[in-house]
Amino acid sequence: MIKIKILTIGKSKENWLQEALAEYEKRLRPFCTFEWILAKNDVQLEEFSKKEGKFIALDPQGKSMTSEKFAAWLSKAAINYHSRLAFVIGGAEGLSPALKAQSSFLWSLSPLTFTHQITRLILLEQIYRAYEINRGSDYHK
Amino acid sequence: MIKIKILTIGKSKENWLQEALAEYEKRLRPFCTFEWILAKNDVQLEEFSKKEGKFIALDPQGKSMTSEKFAAWLSKAAINYHSRLAFVIGGAEGLSPALKAQSSFLWSLSPLTFTHQITRLILLEQIYRAYEINRGSDYHK
Repeated sequence: MIKIKILTIGKSKENWLQEALAEYEKRLRPFCTFEWILAKNDVQLEEFSKKEGKFIALDPQGKSMTSEKFAAWLSKAAINYHSRLAFVIGGAEGLSPALKAQSSFLWSLSPLTFTHQITRLILLEQIYRAYEINRGSDYHK
Repeated sequence: MIKIKILTIGKSKENWLQEALAEYEKRLRPFCTFEWILAKNDVQLEEFSKKEGKFIALDPQGKSMTSEKFAAWLSKAAINYHSRLAFVIGGAEGLSPALKAQSSFLWSLSPLTFTHQITRLILLEQIYRAYEINRGSDYHK
C-alpha cells in the first residue's frame, strides 16, 4: 500500500476544514496510508522536506495537469517514488525558493492562488479522485 | 454595490461546506450582495441562467486566469455587466453544452476537475480574494 505524506505549515484551523479533510482521509483509507507533517515555519518545512528525499511541491507556477493525467501520474509514481509520496504545500507566503529548487516535481493545481488551507482540501480530493479514476468508478465524470 | 448570483444544481449538502461558504459570504458582505439560485436539474439551471441574460459559466475547458487577472476582470465586469454578475456552476455531470454555448464567458478555475460542491467554495474564495487584491490588502501575497 502506498504511503502518502503531506508536509505543510501550521494546523488546519477551521472546523469546517478539519471535517472536510477527515471525510476525504476516511475515503482514502482503503487505498493508501496517510500522514500530515506540520512544520512551524519555512525553515522547519525545508528540514522536514529534505528528510523525505524526493518530494512534490505545489506552486501556481508549476506544471499543470488534468485530473486524468494526475491519476496516470499517481499510478506511475507508486513505482518511481517506491510507494512513498510526499507532497509539500507552502505556508501563507507560498513556497520558499529553496523548496521550489529541491522539489523533484513542481505541480500547479491552478494558475489561481488558493489559501494554503483550501489547498489541503483540493489536494486530498484530487488524490481520492485519482484512485477513483484508476479503478474506473463513476465518481469522476 | 455589485450584485453577485451563483446558479448551480442542488443544495450544499455537507455541513463543513455550508460552514465554509457562510464564512466567505460574511467576509464578502461589505463588498457585494450575494444570492444562491439552486436549480433541481440541468433543464431548470438552463432556464434560470437564461433569465440572467449574460452569465459566466465555469468549466475546466474555459479560459484560465491568475487571481490578479480575475481581480482586474471583476472590477471591469462591474461596468460591463452593469453591476450584476451571475456565475453558473454545472452539476455532478458538469456543464451542459447549451450552457457552455450561451455563456458570455467560459472560465476555467483549473484544468483539474473539482466536485461541483468544492467549486462553490473555490469560487467564493476567489471573489473574496479579488476584492482584497483590488483594495490592496495583504490577504493576497
